[in-house]
Amino acid sequence: MSRLSLNQWTTRRWTVADAVDGCVRHGVEAIGLWRQDVAEQGLDVTLKLVHDAGLRVSSLCRGGFVTGDDRDSAYDDNRRAIDEAAALGAACLVLVVGGLTGVVPDKPLGAFSRDLAGARERVAEALAALAPYAQERGVRLALEPLHPMYCADRSVLSTLGQALDLAKPYGPETVGVVVDTFHVWWDPRVYDDIARAGRERRIASYQVCDFLCPLPSDVLLGRAMMGDGVIDFTPLTEAVDAARYEGDVEVEIFNADVWEADPDQVMATMKERYAALIGL
Amino acid sequence: MSRLSLNQWTTRRWTVADAVDGCVRHGVEAIGLWRQDVAEQGLDVTLKLVHDAGLRVSSLCRGGFVTGDDRDSAYDDNRRAIDEAAALGAACLVLVVGGLTGVVPDKPLGAFSRDLAGARERVAEALAALAPYAQERGVRLALEPLHPMYCADRSVLSTLGQALDLAKPYGPETVGVVVDTFHVWWDPRVYDDIARAGRERRIASYQVCDFLCPLPSDVLLGRAMMGDGVIDFTPLTEAVDAARYEGDVEVEIFNADVWEADPDQVMATMKERYAALIGL
Repeated sequence: MSRLSLNQWTTRRWTVADAVDGCVRHGVEAIGLWRQDVAEQGLDVTLKLVHDAGLRVSSLCRGGFVTGDDRDSAYDDNRRAIDEAAALGAACLVLVVGGLTGVVPDKPLGAFSRDLAGARERVAEALAALAPYAQERGVRLALEPLHPMYCADRSVLSTLGQALDLAKPYGPETVGVVVDTFHVWWDPRVYDDIARAGRERRIASYQVCDFLCPLPSDVLLGRAMMGDGVIDFTPLTEAVDAARYEGDVEVEIFNADVWEADPDQVMATMKERYAALIGL
Repeated sequence: MSRLSLNQWTTRRWTVADAVDGCVRHGVEAIGLWRQDVAEQGLDVTLKLVHDAGLRVSSLCRGGFVTGDDRDSAYDDNRRAIDEAAALGAACLVLVVGGLTGVVPDKPLGAFSRDLAGARERVAEALAALAPYAQERGVRLALEPLHPMYCADRSVLSTLGQALDLAKPYGPETVGVVVDTFHVWWDPRVYDDIARAGRERRIASYQVCDFLCPLPSDVLLGRAMMGDGVIDFTPLTEAVDAARYEGDVEVEIFNADVWEADPDQVMATMKERYAALIGL
């Protein structure tokens, strides 16, 4: 159980202080933080809370969204995110790269570009701009492929193989990848790509979360507590383990019912399901 | 415009007779039929209608759903579908292979299996059982990879590459693949795989349809008229053309607004958009 990490949005109504307390109360040794919650709590206060509680910061969510037209401000924001990850000693800064240029998540389509290849090129360019900055600060960028249903609005990075190709020019300590079960479980190549990620020492984060079926009306909330959806965690966890990933295992769930529930109950369920279904 | 085909569900409230009339009225030379509508109209009547109108049947939708526990009845149903495709002289029988064993589309999860690899194995087994039957009757089975968001409930076949691997043991005249823009547009490997499909002479159907963003609450209805979503059709169509696909190009749209609209208006819009955005 020592590798279990609470991603803060699993208990979304908790502040950083609440979540840190919750981790201590439930014996969870690591936490994945979100930038906006850290900003609300204050970076210095967060650092002190996490430090005093003896928690590891398994990830900071998130940088990315680099496919838009205003690159300067996107890159600036990512540099700030890198600084925050460095201050917090986070094991990685998760990058959700962004969708097609001009597409805004959850908004009707306005002016936008259908140039998918071009948007993907922008991700490579952003990485070239940001990786040296991250490297200087000892921060590991973690490219997160998102499920293809989010390709247009959230992430033109859709598979683990694509993430590994993007990471190639950089050292594995500077650019890694996230393996999130929700996003990759369907991929016929996922086992080959996890093995490749292991050989290339790229796995920066293993996130576990189930896939709801049928999907809810807001597909962003299709994530579920392990065991409540369709994913078989055993072969994926075994593959990540065989790839010699030794970091924390984050539980990150966006789900209306989970967010409605008592966060202490959510943590208790999370621990039970983790023990039964993940067990790393 | 001579290769444009109306998939019948684009004008879903029309019967087969209505849709055949519509094609004649609008100068569309081919039609993709659905089995349940053909059954309602009667197979012989349908055959006569299509023949008298001089239409090509670009596809029959659909066989498949072979991942469940009752294989005998699934295989029987597929053999009936093959017979119908043969009777109609359809260019192919589209196969939507089915999801995880026991998962029923649009229903809450009941008893089911999380064994994704096992479900995929069942597809290979079904193909081994059905391909000889199809070959004897001169019917081409067309494996349709569905968007990964349908992996659990409708199709464990998720990419074109996977479909081509499955097709490998069979002659290209017996087992081909469907390239449906909605399902494959996000795939970083799609251009390589379309080229491969061309080399292996596997493209049995090219279906065009846009991808809505944001997705509607029922993701099955996330399909849209070309131009109303996020897909850039030009590179996909060029790739299919370069792969020397010479068959019909079906417009297949499941969309609440399109189904609500006057079917004659839908056909007029379809022709305009086809000319502007596809143009094969």
